[in-house]
Amino acid sequence: VTDPLAALRAELGPRLAADPETLHRYGRDSSRAEPEGEAIAVVLAESAADVGAALGWAARTGTPVSVRGGGTGLAGGANAYPGGLVVSLDRMNRILEIDVENRLARVEPGVVTADLDAAAREHGLFYAPDPASAATSTIGGNIATNAGGLRCIAHGVTREAVAELEVVLPDGRVLETGRRTVKDVVGYDLTGLFVGSEGTLGVITAATVRLKPIPPGEPRTFRAGFDSLEAAGAAVIAIALGADRPEILELMDAFSVEMVESFFPSGLAVPRGAMLVGQAVGSDAQRIAEAIVERCVEAGATDSEISTTSSLLEARRLANPALTARGLRLSCDVGVPVAALATMLRGVEAIAARHGRRIATVAHAGDGNLHSAVEAGDSPVETAIAEEMLDEITRLALELGGTISGEHGIGSTKHHELPWQLSATSIDVHRRIKEALDPGGILSPGRAV
Amino acid sequence: VTDPLAALRAELGPRLAADPETLHRYGRDSSRAEPEGEAIAVVLAESAADVGAALGWAARTGTPVSVRGGGTGLAGGANAYPGGLVVSLDRMNRILEIDVENRLARVEPGVVTADLDAAAREHGLFYAPDPASAATSTIGGNIATNAGGLRCIAHGVTREAVAELEVVLPDGRVLETGRRTVKDVVGYDLTGLFVGSEGTLGVITAATVRLKPIPPGEPRTFRAGFDSLEAAGAAVIAIALGADRPEILELMDAFSVEMVESFFPSGLAVPRGAMLVGQAVGSDAQRIAEAIVERCVEAGATDSEISTTSSLLEARRLANPALTARGLRLSCDVGVPVAALATMLRGVEAIAARHGRRIATVAHAGDGNLHSAVEAGDSPVETAIAEEMLDEITRLALELGGTISGEHGIGSTKHHELPWQLSATSIDVHRRIKEALDPGGILSPGRAV
Repeated sequence: VTDPLAALRAELGPRLAADPETLHRYGRDSSRAEPEGEAIAVVLAESAADVGAALGWAARTGTPVSVRGGGTGLAGGANAYPGGLVVSLDRMNRILEIDVENRLARVEPGVVTADLDAAAREHGLFYAPDPASAATSTIGGNIATNAGGLRCIAHGVTREAVAELEVVLPDGRVLETGRRTVKDVVGYDLTGLFVGSEGTLGVITAATVRLKPIPPGEPRTFRAGFDSLEAAGAAVIAIALGADRPEILELMDAFSVEMVESFFPSGLAVPRGAMLVGQAVGSDAQRIAEAIVERCVEAGATDSEISTTSSLLEARRLANPALTARGLRLSCDVGVPVAALATMLRGVEAIAARHGRRIATVAHAGDGNLHSAVEAGDSPVETAIAEEMLDEITRLALELGGTISGEHGIGSTKHHELPWQLSATSIDVHRRIKEALDPGGILSPGRAV
Repeated sequence: VTDPLAALRAELGPRLAADPETLHRYGRDSSRAEPEGEAIAVVLAESAADVGAALGWAARTGTPVSVRGGGTGLAGGANAYPGGLVVSLDRMNRILEIDVENRLARVEPGVVTADLDAAAREHGLFYAPDPASAATSTIGGNIATNAGGLRCIAHGVTREAVAELEVVLPDGRVLETGRRTVKDVVGYDLTGLFVGSEGTLGVITAATVRLKPIPPGEPRTFRAGFDSLEAAGAAVIAIALGADRPEILELMDAFSVEMVESFFPSGLAVPRGAMLVGQAVGSDAQRIAEAIVERCVEAGATDSEISTTSSLLEARRLANPALTARGLRLSCDVGVPVAALATMLRGVEAIAARHGRRIATVAHAGDGNLHSAVEAGDSPVETAIAEEMLDEITRLALELGGTISGEHGIGSTKHHELPWQLSATSIDVHRRIKEALDPGGILSPGRAV
């Protein structure tokens, strides 16, 4: 029997793995989507040349390729294809350069997000995008999914932090995109096109990202409780229209606060409606926090506080573990225009009531991105009911002018929802671009677009 | 003789013009590139349907189409093609909606940039991108060229202000891109792809743009004079790394200050090296301006001032008319990483000395975008020398990691420079995307990419 991997093994040597442990370890991401089968091999790439060799072999053999960074994705985008090739970038984890004067860093894709941030901070700078998985996610994965996080209201999403990319195209050629200048209008925005393309157009093998100066002074955190969702929503709009901007502005509904307090008791007051928590930074952080709390009170906050510690943000950070502990494992990632936040939350309550099950929602309130988790058991029937409820939440977000995914991406888990948001013309344009760059359809086929 | 325009005239009626005056009026933009000939007709579009009819006719007859907004472009991108069709969008000039709570405006493409800003200000909001031509340029043209301006250091370029687009594709289909949510990771960034595509992929017939709250308090302007380019460059880097950010940070070299003072005398001190001028906004504008001036002094500024009026920015605004009056008509639009600004300016001086001609440079210092204008006569020989000097400046910017165009675009005038910056692979990827969306090659053929 001939080894189907012989040609690739000859090129990659020990950087090609096909043992069961490696196949298992690199076979999936952190989503609830089970891979449909096992890959034939994993490329533990150490260079763009390795990636090029992998894609060249995949093109010649018609093998589907999935691309994997830290494996923290929540949409099944990095799951292995049956008989496919996994290209892992976790060994390409060097910070190649920190250019302090231009506030840029050049990194390999496997650099862990938090490691880049820590390295930048040694120079008085920081890396602004902060997905919740920053401690284990990689920059390459963050870029491929246009990752969000808590600080987007102040610093934007990952796309806005990317200046240059090195990408291996499906035909093995290496493409350089972007520029280190702040402004550049030469050609199409290929950098922006690859950001968020979820491994369907090319494999990112290096990136230049923008850093920011660390704000001076000590941050202030704040919290405000509201009797109604409408009052909390009005506060979010008032803050958005004000001159004093928070760096973080999060919302937790009553049920999610209740969950956190029940699993990690800290004396946190459970609001009747919802709670806003956030952070202000800069030399006048105290004044900004006071102005924001004042807007909350004007909108009807029943209690509020400001702190010099990060304790007020703890409840938000503990929401995911608390909800997971309670078995609220299915969640969505919809977004709505900020002014529709209260209407959306009220609609989610109605969906919960209609199905006789509770839903906990935490939201990046400042940017309208909601994660609603449904209380449901482990059985197939319960899962089906939860998925029906999440579908209803998704359709409601679309009715309100929103999106089916604010930051997690489409991957394989939301692929069936794509036509809910995009027109047939839009999907056709996506497919044309995909075909223009990947005519053989080897990269993440059937996912994302 | 049959009228070649008969079919199109039947669809458009009086919205199709072929009289000499209209052909002349809509035949070119504001660049120095003369159109190679006259169009066959101008479509004075009043709707997306008109644009669709025009593109459909052009596709059937193989007629090249140029697209025109306010005609303020500086790269020949809107110039007519000989025997081509001009699609003008200046009649589609309605502000369709201002959504205050979500800080968005929905506009037709022919809305004049300054008119949108004025309308937003009635609601306490403003439109941040501010190209110098804002009083006559249109939003559609701004989007098609990803226009820059003075405030990019604080608010980013036009791309960052665009949330949604309605685009008529070359085959006449209408594509909606983007979302009103702050975060959206569904599909490719088609919005960002069309922004800056210079009329090569589709015709923008509506846009939703992001607005910002007007900063409170009175702005402060500041000025600092430097004996050397290096000192001014060091000040720019120090400001970029500091926590106190200006809204505007412009540089004028000694020759450009001299020109302004000579044509519009106001007692402005001509620096030996260069002058920085800028603006700080917000409730602590005075403190920010003082901090920035302090950094200038630390970097070696020999004199400085802060003002509550906009007078210090006047010199920058008068630079273009002063240089034009002096006959410095040829200029470039290169950009370099901010830390390379002083090296770039020193190199421009060397190019001037080598050719025995003076060069005046004004720069959006905060983002590294330079406009250098060469002193040259009107003759073909003088023009050739000036163009040789501008080519040298462009190649120097590239050597320093810069770009051939920071904000004016490629159009037809810089098309030959494209391979200086982009690799063959990159140009091939551009062409593939162009062909995927415009297989007939009717939209702005041979321009931009």
